[in-house]
Amino acid sequence: MGDLTRDAFLGGRVILWQPAKGYRAGVDPVLLAAAVPAVAGQTALDLGCGVGAAALCLAARVPGVSVVGLERQPDYAALARRNAEENGAAFEVFEGDLAAPPAALRQMQVAHVLANPPYYDAAARSAAADPGREAALAEETPLAVWLDAGLRRLKPRGTFSLIQRADRLPDLLSACDARLGSLTLRPVVPRDGRNASLVLLQGVKGGRAAFRLLPPLVMHEGARHERDGESYRPEVSAVLRDAAALPR
Amino acid sequence: MGDLTRDAFLGGRVILWQPAKGYRAGVDPVLLAAAVPAVAGQTALDLGCGVGAAALCLAARVPGVSVVGLERQPDYAALARRNAEENGAAFEVFEGDLAAPPAALRQMQVAHVLANPPYYDAAARSAAADPGREAALAEETPLAVWLDAGLRRLKPRGTFSLIQRADRLPDLLSACDARLGSLTLRPVVPRDGRNASLVLLQGVKGGRAAFRLLPPLVMHEGARHERDGESYRPEVSAVLRDAAALPR
Repeated sequence: MGDLTRDAFLGGRVILWQPAKGYRAGVDPVLLAAAVPAVAGQTALDLGCGVGAAALCLAARVPGVSVVGLERQPDYAALARRNAEENGAAFEVFEGDLAAPPAALRQMQVAHVLANPPYYDAAARSAAADPGREAALAEETPLAVWLDAGLRRLKPRGTFSLIQRADRLPDLLSACDARLGSLTLRPVVPRDGRNASLVLLQGVKGGRAAFRLLPPLVMHEGARHERDGESYRPEVSAVLRDAAALPR
Repeated sequence: MGDLTRDAFLGGRVILWQPAKGYRAGVDPVLLAAAVPAVAGQTALDLGCGVGAAALCLAARVPGVSVVGLERQPDYAALARRNAEENGAAFEVFEGDLAAPPAALRQMQVAHVLANPPYYDAAARSAAADPGREAALAEETPLAVWLDAGLRRLKPRGTFSLIQRADRLPDLLSACDARLGSLTLRPVVPRDGRNASLVLLQGVKGGRAAFRLLPPLVMHEGARHERDGESYRPEVSAVLRDAAALPR
């Protein structure tokens, strides 16, 4: 997979080897991990865990949590295992496909599932295409398969957290089925008054509360980029640098 | 339908007779009408127009627009006609069902469709129930039928605007199909930092731009109710009292 870089997350609490080119973890998996309401003794499953960014951020934030990952690409899975070892984390990585996970994973039931499904350029075509066409065009696993794979592994009352580009919200909500309820949606916006760039969706297996659209999480101070260096708002900086949970 | 009241909208530009009990127009149809980008010479169709609140607010805001309404309940349709006449508006009301509209309406193609489908208590059950179950439980027309009825009447590049309770967003987005693209979603929040109470969804027939999640429209000043009397923010007051278009 070519050159690797070694990058710090959560103020250095997590150090990740990742490919210099291709998918690279940014703030998205850190926000995702910060949204998972896991407590010590529970297990969380990271679907499509890549090099383990979200899983290892969750393990670093919540002592006593076990994290399990599923990754289709062998080189990413290998890197995830190396990252688990170097970070001394309770993080077990399975290699396999979402639609047909390994038997050992199929026997597990977990308290939390998290996923950061790959993004692609939805702007190039109709956002309302049907899921089958989405998959064909994007050559990827449909979001409904991600949801189904996670829900099968989730205990009753377990939580499912997803982060996704905001332009994919219709697809994401359409992919949810009746097993997942009590949905909350948190838009993530770069600055106050801007359109959402990302959405964080969280649901409860068997939950029956009504859907809630939460106020946006605003990443940066001010109306525009005004100076070099970090401009994260204090509550976001606490999440990204100090391993805080996402404000609820 | 019992006692009627006579209520002023848009700072008195629209006066509506409406039933004292049952569904009564509030800010929702006014916001909906303010979202429709109609110009003089165009026709807009208000699906499920009730007593004509949204249709007449649109007619009052945009001189030279023709408005057509479809209403299933004969007493509401009759009141809508009375309101059209008393307000001197170009507003024609058809009586009939969304799923089987009158022939005269089926022959029309319009530039804009607007709809404020009835709300019901989604909190009492799973928000992710399938559309068929929704309809059975709520004894109402599924949102997909509203979308289909409007899209059939809409010209290519025409706009479809809907307002709905925020907890119904998953159903609303799931009801959209590939004919409606370039979707924009505007959360409506009572005050800054609160969960959304309503959502305004707008799409373009045949549009191909990506879905956009806009910043919330904040109705009231301040973090809580602090004094009697109106506390609408200036841009909202302009919409509700001065017949301004919704800021885009």
